[in-house]
Amino acid sequence: MTSRWLQTPAHVTSNPGQLPGGFRAAGVACGIKPSGGLDLGLMVCSAPDCVSAARFTRSGVLAAPVVLTKERTRLDALRVIVANSGNANAATGRRGFEDAARMQGGAAMAGGVREDQVAVASTGVIGVPLDAGEAIRGIARARGELREHGHGDFSEAIQTTDKFAKEVEVDVALPSGTVRLTAQAKGAGMISPAFATMLCFVQTDAAMSAETADLLLGVCVARSFDRVSVDGQLSTNDTVILQASGTSGVRIEPESEDEVRFGEALDWALRKLALDIVRDGEGSKRIGRVVVRGGSDEVTARAARAVANSPLVKAALHGGDPNWGRIAQAVGAALHDTAPLALDIFIEGVQVCAGGVAVPHDAAALAQAVAGDEVEYDIALPGEGGEAEVFFSDLSHEYVTINADYTT
Amino acid sequence: MTSRWLQTPAHVTSNPGQLPGGFRAAGVACGIKPSGGLDLGLMVCSAPDCVSAARFTRSGVLAAPVVLTKERTRLDALRVIVANSGNANAATGRRGFEDAARMQGGAAMAGGVREDQVAVASTGVIGVPLDAGEAIRGIARARGELREHGHGDFSEAIQTTDKFAKEVEVDVALPSGTVRLTAQAKGAGMISPAFATMLCFVQTDAAMSAETADLLLGVCVARSFDRVSVDGQLSTNDTVILQASGTSGVRIEPESEDEVRFGEALDWALRKLALDIVRDGEGSKRIGRVVVRGGSDEVTARAARAVANSPLVKAALHGGDPNWGRIAQAVGAALHDTAPLALDIFIEGVQVCAGGVAVPHDAAALAQAVAGDEVEYDIALPGEGGEAEVFFSDLSHEYVTINADYTT
Repeated sequence: MTSRWLQTPAHVTSNPGQLPGGFRAAGVACGIKPSGGLDLGLMVCSAPDCVSAARFTRSGVLAAPVVLTKERTRLDALRVIVANSGNANAATGRRGFEDAARMQGGAAMAGGVREDQVAVASTGVIGVPLDAGEAIRGIARARGELREHGHGDFSEAIQTTDKFAKEVEVDVALPSGTVRLTAQAKGAGMISPAFATMLCFVQTDAAMSAETADLLLGVCVARSFDRVSVDGQLSTNDTVILQASGTSGVRIEPESEDEVRFGEALDWALRKLALDIVRDGEGSKRIGRVVVRGGSDEVTARAARAVANSPLVKAALHGGDPNWGRIAQAVGAALHDTAPLALDIFIEGVQVCAGGVAVPHDAAALAQAVAGDEVEYDIALPGEGGEAEVFFSDLSHEYVTINADYTT
Repeated sequence: MTSRWLQTPAHVTSNPGQLPGGFRAAGVACGIKPSGGLDLGLMVCSAPDCVSAARFTRSGVLAAPVVLTKERTRLDALRVIVANSGNANAATGRRGFEDAARMQGGAAMAGGVREDQVAVASTGVIGVPLDAGEAIRGIARARGELREHGHGDFSEAIQTTDKFAKEVEVDVALPSGTVRLTAQAKGAGMISPAFATMLCFVQTDAAMSAETADLLLGVCVARSFDRVSVDGQLSTNDTVILQASGTSGVRIEPESEDEVRFGEALDWALRKLALDIVRDGEGSKRIGRVVVRGGSDEVTARAARAVANSPLVKAALHGGDPNWGRIAQAVGAALHDTAPLALDIFIEGVQVCAGGVAVPHDAAALAQAVAGDEVEYDIALPGEGGEAEVFFSDLSHEYVTINADYTT
């Protein structure tokens, strides 16, 4: 899907096909999802020098696979990823940790690597023990199905309430040569950055140091998955992993033009996937972008997130209701004891509030403007220097339907 | 309505009837509400020595009547309250301030008091200019209808999306004699403490110093309106005012048994009204109470509010879904970087999580327990000393319907 908020860089070319050199993947059904759908994905890199970088949820309640992956792997040299949907393996205690460790062991055998080179990720219901036996059998079967075109099945196997696949398959032209970049993400609810969990796995055949991978991933996650809200709910399981096999022979050196260009491509890819997650936000019909400028980065981030998380703003977005008073209310509520706050508000470029005061405007034109698929809110606070951007979904009847009865 | 979370003190007796001595009220329709319903309320205390206390929203975006009342009145000696529904007079700038001042002037004339003894309160749509002319004509008409039984109309005139009146009419037996206590509140959405605005006006014929009134109101607001969430949205207009006419001749001295007993009654009254607001939460079917113990007051408050504001917890409450994983997720998300967090979770007394790990329990019995009108969540964090309680409504289809199309 396309969005006016996302320009594909000229050196990035869509090219559906196989995974970058060195990678094979598979997705199988192993019985964790009651529906019988694909629920176990395996991603294996055959390059011994594969480097990696990772980011995780900051929740105080961490799922077992997150704890295991953070504590018992070499995050800079991950070669295998095993991920399941249907069960988050969270709040499952020692048993959960052991189940995650069994998955890690099984995947290490399947990929022919050491256990500390295997990341484990899970998504689904919290607080229900995972049947590791099923997962292990799934891993064994997935091993036999690993192939260069397996990322579609892998992508399907990590989905829960997602309504569409979130994938990137592009070639990236760098000064030193062309590299391939693929990624698979999931997430539709509990996103802030993410829940029902946001997972994202990125593969490239570019060569780079682990430090470069970590730097690029950190910058790009901050500009993508850290800037979306479906329902303001941070997950127990959020995981993002970048793997670089190096098989292209194109090496990305620090502070090179290659690094800048690759960074642009990765930034585009993650922002695309983050936007896909918002667009797939449970029950989402419209998506919004709020950009807050002024004050400091901390203040603008607080205000932007408050607008994006407000159920009143989200419901108005859903209804195509240009109720900008709720924007003012959300900003005011986020910035306690700052009254009088001289804020400006623009919706789709139409100024509705100046210095905290309503501005006469063409209400019919504005109503028309907010009836589109994407609605932009720009807010200016007093001062200069800060800027924050958050993408968010609307609040719909379907969100309530999906979430009022999820475990049963 | 009754709630197991609210015990009426033995010395507090329900007694529908007239306002406490010294007070008269009225509610009229003056055309601010398009529906033609009552939309302007006037409350007048004839006692020259009437004392008062007030609390307001801390939003950075304050409505004109809040700014006016905070800056241009003697908050300890308010005798008249003029309140309208249908228009919040917020984000209306200098004109809004002048409109609020005109209402204040009109109400001062109507009540025969100085302007600085008149509080103004508004609730309704944000960012639309108020027609002060209509309000002034309404005040003039309300003046002619002031009477000792006028609080029912006053109560109706301050409502917006409320589905039922939120009132208290009780006699309070104190050691030094019996006093009367009445109160009218409104609020159904944007509550945290409140929006679409929470307004509450309390009258008593007890005599007390302004300091005592302020102390008692502060303590009781912190235990009531500060502890509810419909949608986590703080309003631009929240206002709570306590007026004490002193006409009963019963004087409440500081640190007396009278003060303790009166405080208990006020506490009960405000908690009842706060619970009524949650129960009337837009589209609400069930209400929840979350109590978090352990850690510090700051940590438990953060965790309790996160649970109460979580759309996922609210949707599960609505659906009668005992999805306690979402409780764990909300607490974890509120307490960044504290993993592993050894939290215990009880739903309706059934322990579902111990030390962060799922506990086997009777799922059928739990499903039955969460099907009631009120659901209790108890959470224990490591440590001792902190405790926080928040009441909250569920998230329903009706909330979306109400809020997706409110301005139009």
